[in-house]
This record gives sequence, structure tokens and C-alpha cells, in this order.
Amino acid sequence: MPKLKDLIEELVTANRILANEGIVDSFGHVSVRHPDRKDRYLLSRARAPERIEASDIMEFNLDGEPVDVRKAKRFAPYTERFIHGAVYELRPDVQSVVHNHSPSTIPFGVTGNTLKPLLHICASIGHEVPLWDSHDRFGDTALLVNSMAMGRDLAKRLGKGRSALMRGHGAVVAGNSIRHAVFVSYYLELNAKLQMQSMAMGRIKYLYPGEVDAVVARTGPYTLNRAWENWCRRAGRKTKEVG
Amino acid sequence: MPKLKDLIEELVTANRILANEGIVDSFGHVSVRHPDRKDRYLLSRARAPERIEASDIMEFNLDGEPVDVRKAKRFAPYTERFIHGAVYELRPDVQSVVHNHSPSTIPFGVTGNTLKPLLHICASIGHEVPLWDSHDRFGDTALLVNSMAMGRDLAKRLGKGRSALMRGHGAVVAGNSIRHAVFVSYYLELNAKLQMQSMAMGRIKYLYPGEVDAVVARTGPYTLNRAWENWCRRAGRKTKEVG
Amino acid sequence: MPKLKDLIEELVTANRILANEGIVDSFGHVSVRHPDRKDRYLLSRARAPERIEASDIMEFNLDGEPVDVRKAKRFAPYTERFIHGAVYELRPDVQSVVHNHSPSTIPFGVTGNTLKPLLHICASIGHEVPLWDSHDRFGDTALLVNSMAMGRDLAKRLGKGRSALMRGHGAVVAGNSIRHAVFVSYYLELNAKLQMQSMAMGRIKYLYPGEVDAVVARTGPYTLNRAWENWCRRAGRKTKEVG
Amino acid sequence: MPKLKDLIEELVTANRILANEGIVDSFGHVSVRHPDRKDRYLLSRARAPERIEASDIMEFNLDGEPVDVRKAKRFAPYTERFIHGAVYELRPDVQSVVHNHSPSTIPFGVTGNTLKPLLHICASIGHEVPLWDSHDRFGDTALLVNSMAMGRDLAKRLGKGRSALMRGHGAVVAGNSIRHAVFVSYYLELNAKLQMQSMAMGRIKYLYPGEVDAVVARTGPYTLNRAWENWCRRAGRKTKEVG
Repeated sequence: MPKLKDLIEELVTANRILANEGIVDSFGHVSVRHPDRKDRYLLSRARAPERIEASDIMEFNLDGEPVDVRKAKRFAPYTERFIHGAVYELRPDVQSVVHNHSPSTIPFGVTGNTLKPLLHICASIGHEVPLWDSHDRFGDTALLVNSMAMGRDLAKRLGKGRSALMRGHGAVVAGNSIRHAVFVSYYLELNAKLQMQSMAMGRIKYLYPGEVDAVVARTGPYTLNRAWENWCRRAGRKTKEVG
Repeated sequence: MPKLKDLIEELVTANRILANEGIVDSFGHVSVRHPDRKDRYLLSRARAPERIEASDIMEFNLDGEPVDVRKAKRFAPYTERFIHGAVYELRPDVQSVVHNHSPSTIPFGVTGNTLKPLLHICASIGHEVPLWDSHDRFGDTALLVNSMAMGRDLAKRLGKGRSALMRGHGAVVAGNSIRHAVFVSYYLELNAKLQMQSMAMGRIKYLYPGEVDAVVARTGPYTLNRAWENWCRRAGRKTKEVG
Repeated sequence: MPKLKDLIEELVTANRILANEGIVDSFGHVSVRHPDRKDRYLLSRARAPERIEASDIMEFNLDGEPVDVRKAKRFAPYTERFIHGAVYELRPDVQSVVHNHSPSTIPFGVTGNTLKPLLHICASIGHEVPLWDSHDRFGDTALLVNSMAMGRDLAKRLGKGRSALMRGHGAVVAGNSIRHAVFVSYYLELNAKLQMQSMAMGRIKYLYPGEVDAVVARTGPYTLNRAWENWCRRAGRKTKEVG
Repeated sequence: MPKLKDLIEELVTANRILANEGIVDSFGHVSVRHPDRKDRYLLSRARAPERIEASDIMEFNLDGEPVDVRKAKRFAPYTERFIHGAVYELRPDVQSVVHNHSPSTIPFGVTGNTLKPLLHICASIGHEVPLWDSHDRFGDTALLVNSMAMGRDLAKRLGKGRSALMRGHGAVVAGNSIRHAVFVSYYLELNAKLQMQSMAMGRIKYLYPGEVDAVVARTGPYTLNRAWENWCRRAGRKTKEVG
């Protein structure tokens, strides 16, 4: 199954890109839905994204149970893998999920200011980014999404969108491919940074709703691949043609 | 025609410098007017500036039609090439055009604060930088300048100046050489960053109009080449002597 | 004593990581309590952290006197080594101490705003970070902690916590291992940066006290080693398994 | 004269360090007084600091005239070399001068906020940093210090201090050695950055005047060499032992 092998390489590249561009640090993760089994996804064992190799990738069912039990004995999985399964469960259209602690998004989560696209290329984050607070339903926790119950609550807040913030924690992004999820994650961080700076300068003219829709409608391989090729080069990865 | 070959190398170097200095990311582009045909310009195929090679450079007429039809079948051109043609059409004095999404300029475009030079070396951006909003005449679009009509509207807003901002999108810079356009682009970003910081601290004493004129009058090869040589080194490019 | 040799390598790595991640610059230092002699600690001679080698590490008693007098004649010790001894003296639980001038913490020290965790992974800094002002008891000095009297006054302000700020100077961090002290130092800087940005945007919802406790309770090797492995890679150091 | 040769290498290293640490960009320069001729100084030909080699260093008398007329025919000198001569003329104690456009200092110059030390290691910039505005006496110019008259006016504003800001332009730093001038330049930038951030957070407790004096009194080779060694490593330069 060459397709699966290529997809795993693509997933490794996604990890390296997100680390290299400062979207994830030692934590954060990216997954892809299994191409042949819609009820499974691929995700690295618990490891910093910058270090991940193809051999680190594990297969999980949507409830977060590892398919290969022997591998799971050697390799600890991410505590928060439930984020991924819960999004895939609720959203059949989603093929790739990113969870990160992207720095500029944090101030929005803790102050409650709404993140909204102000730059054309950031329209992919959605008309506005909903905020999920784990404390509302789960009270005093370590804020980690360590159960399907928490994962589903977060996925519900994400709804039909592309991204959601998590108070005091980070963000989740849902894409229709690995490249798309990485693209949205990257521009979510950029929009947050620019919006923070703009807020200090005056009233912001965000993108018009119709503009957001127009940008989203035309964001396809032509756009995604240009950025991907560039990020691959910076991260020292070859560009694989997938999908 | 050795001159053309050297100019293409210079254009490749300009792309690499703009990427390396953070003025363009995966998008954005720089062109040069054809040295022998005033009604044509040279611009890369659609590709991230950091990746561009001499073989990616294409020739266009001012309406944005590729001269080499066979090459155009293999290589997709930039959607927004019309920015370049429209500026060359309106401004016979302009020899090089940059379009970018330079990060610090974005907050000015979306808040409507006027960008004005406050540092001597930034005087090249002009007395003040006009703002163009595609929505005024074209309504809900993906904000991309994908027709001569849009390009001409933008060029008109640029007028006789060196730079103009595009709301929710980026900036356009018009230089009298590749090195000049790169120089203005670099210092437009720096001025925006410093002005943003200064605005938070109090009332700004911008350059006096007479100072702006005095700086512009003496900005020639002595100044441009010093920066260019430095940026080439950082971007791992040799310095070619052109023009 | 292979354990000691490994610990010294770990200490060198800690210095390189702190420098590479921008937590220390040319100054700042990190120590570890001697594994066999609770009344001694290991600390480099006076040198920029980015340059430190295993041969630079010296052994001190808690009063800051070098154990190897001959080595001390060749190598000048850090003026501020008293910070380390005073913390080890007051806090038997502490195994590693970092002193730094971490940039984002400085504005908190000089404005008196209280640093508090707002991001889950930053909970390790403690419920809130106390501020020590050397001027209160020692008046006009060069602000350097160059005596046990100053060191003890600072350690008292740190109390049972994990971190304390020093007005106009920097911070001190107390960990239960080298990896823990580096981890807390890194996330103290991040929290300061994010809190500074958030303060400009509105009222902050800090972590709930119960959340801070929950995060601290589960921050063990699983978490620390993931970050450590990543930072080692970035700093060009091998990951040694210690403790 | 091995001493002169070593000093020239030290001056080249100073240029590379200032460029590598972001204190100068393509412009800005650093000089040293001639060790045997108090009425002369050494300064590179007009070139970006990151590119400078030993063969670029020229000798000037205090009025800015090149001593080696043949070399001066091949190599254009810096337009603003008069800054250096004017400071050496007024200040027999000064052995090295830096002129830069250090980014965080610019907002202070254009808003008129007074830069004052708030971090112990920044005390070397002086109790407060005076601001010189070329427009006061010279009106509309390109802001360049291109005559002894302008240089002397600036030097007068610097007075007995270590640093002065130039409105809309940059800063000048006067040290008692190359390493000292580089050190003050580096920490002038850091203090400006931290003061800018602190101003946004509340009222600042600057260093007490007695603290500034105490720090300055103890800033000698022990401190300067530690930073220098570190910066050399980062800039890929060997540490030469000089003075």
C-alpha cells in the first residue's frame, strides 16, 4: 500500500513544518484520517513534533485505542489523542486535525477577544473562531483533553468550522487534507499576531463576510502547494506529491 | 543577450532576498521591466519566492499575457500578475515592481492609520503611503488583483508614489530598478514596525517633508548597493553587478 | 562515579539549551545539587552558558566556597553563585537552580505587575511569582547577589515556590531536577511574554487555582523528557538518560 | 606593529558581532582610536558591517580625511565618519565609537520619551540618554552627519555620557575600548526594547542613581570579556586577546 506509506511521510513532514514555523513547540500534534478505514486515524507516539520519524506513527480507532497493541506497549501515545478522534467522529468531511499551543492565539483565549480574519490569506480560519473553555463543563482539570467526553465537547464547539480556541491551552484546526490543516494552522497564528497588533492601533476593518467566502472558495491545491513546497524547503524535507 | 541573462539572475536574487528578509512569505512576487521591450516585463511562474530559479522566469506583455505560450502551458503564472503590468503601463519611470504581504504593513491597512516615514532610511517609501481598498470598487472578492481593471485601479491609487497599501492584503512597491524596489520594500516593513511601536508610546515626530526630499535625492547606487551586497550574503547569493 | 559524570554532562546540556532558547544570554547560570553530598552543588566557572564545557564545571559548598582550590585559582567563579547555595540551604527539596535575565520577565519586575500562569503548561511557575527587590534591604548596590546575606534574603522571598523575580535584574527558578528547572525557566519566559500581550488586550482569565494544582500534579518525566529531547536536538546536544 | 594588526582584527570582529546581534543592519559603523596616534582613528570603508574584512579598514585623521590617499581613491569612505572624529576630538577618554540604527531606540527618538536604564546590565548606557535632533541647528537635511560641524554638535549633545539618540536616525555610543562600545550598544538596544514593553504595562521603577553608579564602577574585563567571548562564537569569530 504505497498510498499509506506516502501519507505517513506527508504526516511526518507536517510535524516538521509545524515545528519549524513555530506553530507547535515541544508539544502539539497533527493527525490524518486513515485513507482506507474512515474509523481510524494516524498520529505519532508522544514525541516533540520536530523529532518525529515515520516509525513513530501509530494507528488509532476513533475512541483513541491503538490498533497495534504491541507497538503501544513500547510507545506511549499522546494523552490528548481524543481531540483527533472526536473531530473525525463528528465531522466526516475532515481528513486532518492539528492541535497546537500556537503562541499568538493564547491571548485571545484568555481575554475572550474574538479572533476574526483580517488578511485575505487568513480567511481559511473561518468567519470567526469559537472559544472552548474546558472549565465550563469539566471544572478544575489539568486542561488536557484526556477523554472522549472532553474531546466531543470540544468538537461540538468547533462545530462546522475550521478552527477553535481552547482557553489557557491552545487551538484545534480541522482540514480537508494534511496540507490544508497545516495551512490553516499557520495562518491562524499569523492572523492572531496581526489582529493583536491592529487592536492596539484602532478599530479594525475585518474581511467582509462575502470576502471570506470568496477566498475560501478558491483556496485549493494551487495555493496550498505553493506554501507547502516553501515550508518543506525550510524544514529540510522533500516535497512528496500526495492526493 | 548577456544583459537579459544577468537581469534574470538579479531578479532571482531579489526573490531570495525578499524571502530571506521576511518581506514575502510563500506568496508575493517581484518583477522587472524588460530591458529591450518597454511593453513587457519579467516575472516568475507561480512559486514561493524562496524557491525560484532562473528557469522559472517568464515574459509577459503589459496585459499579463505570457509571451512564450508553450512555457505557459507547463507553468501556471501568478494570478495577480496584473499588478505589475498595470503599474508599468501607468508609470513609464518604473522599472521594477514588488507585491508583498509584509507583516507590519497589514495593521495599517486594516485600521486606516497612515504610514509615514519616521526614520531617514525609510524616506524612500514616500511622504505618506496611500491605502487602496479593493472593496470600494469591486465589492466582495477574494481580494486578489486578477484583472487589468483591478490592477489599473490599484496603480491609480499608487499614483506617482513609491508604495501603496492594500487593505486586508498587503502592499505594492514601485522602484526605478530591482535593487531600488527591494530596498523600498524592506524599509517599508521596518518603518511600519517602528511606527506601530512609536504610536503606542506617544506623539510621533515624523521626518520633515524637506528631510524626506533630501533623503530621496541622495539615495543612489552608493546606498542601494551597500544593502544589496549585505542581503545577497545573507541569502547565499553572489552579488552581480547590473545596471 | 559515572553518575556524577553524566550529571555534569546534563548540566552542560542545560546551559546550552537555556542559551539556545534565549532564556540566558551572555550571563545567567544553572546549577545542580551534588548527588552524593547534599551540602555541595555543581556550577560552571564564570562563562557565557553557550560556551560551557564539562571541564568548566566546579564544585562549591553551600556558602559558595570552591572545593577544588587549585581549579579556583585558574577559573574565576560567578559572582552570584550565592543565589544557588542559599536556595539549596533553605530548600532541601530543590535539586537544581537557574538564575537568568529572561527578557520578558524584566517588565514585570520593574512595573510590579504580578506574573501569574495563564497557559496550562506554564502552571509550573507556581500560583503567582513573588518579586524581590534588593534595594529594600541592601540599598544602592550593583544589584548582584554577591553574598550569602543577599542570597538568603532572595531565597526567603522565593519561599516554597518554584520561581521569583528580581527587580531590575532577572529571575531565579528552583526545580526538583535539572530538566525541571530548565522547563520552569522556559515556560516562565513564555508566560511573561503572553501575559504582557494579553494585558494589552483586556482582562485576563488566569488558570484557576485548582487547574494550577492539577497541572503541577501531573508534570513528570513524560512531560519533561518530551521537551528536553526537543531542546537537545535544537541545541545540537545528545539526550542523556539521567535520573 | 602586531598590536595594530590585532586591533584591526578586533574591529572587524566588532562589526560582525554588531551585525549578527541585530544592532547594525546594512548601515551603521564602529571605529577605534589609533593606538599610537591619538589624532587618528580606524574605520572601515563604506560597506555593510557583516561583510567587512581587515583589508577594508582605513585610517582617518580626526577631521575625517583618509591618511592613505591611494586607498581612498579605490574605496569610498562612510559619509558619516565625522561622527567618530568629532567624538574623539571632544572626548580624550573615548577609544571606540559606534553609530547604529538599532531598531528599538528609534521609537524613543521620534516620540521624545527618555531612555533610562531599568536593567542592571544596561546601566552602562548612562543615567539617561540625551536626544539630538539635527533639525534644530541644521534644518532640512538628509539627517546624515556629513560634516565636522554636525559631528561636533552631536558630540556636544553626547557630552560626558556613553550614548545619545539621534531623532529619526539612530544612536551614537562612546566606549573606552572596542569591547566596551559594543557592550553598551548591545544593552542600549535591549534596554530600549524592555522599556518600551514596560511603558505599556505601568509606571516603571528605573534603576536608582546609586545603583547605576555601582554597576558602572564594576563593569570591567570580567564582564565585558564574558559577553565578547559569547558574541564571537555566535558570529563565527575567534576571540582575540587585546588590551
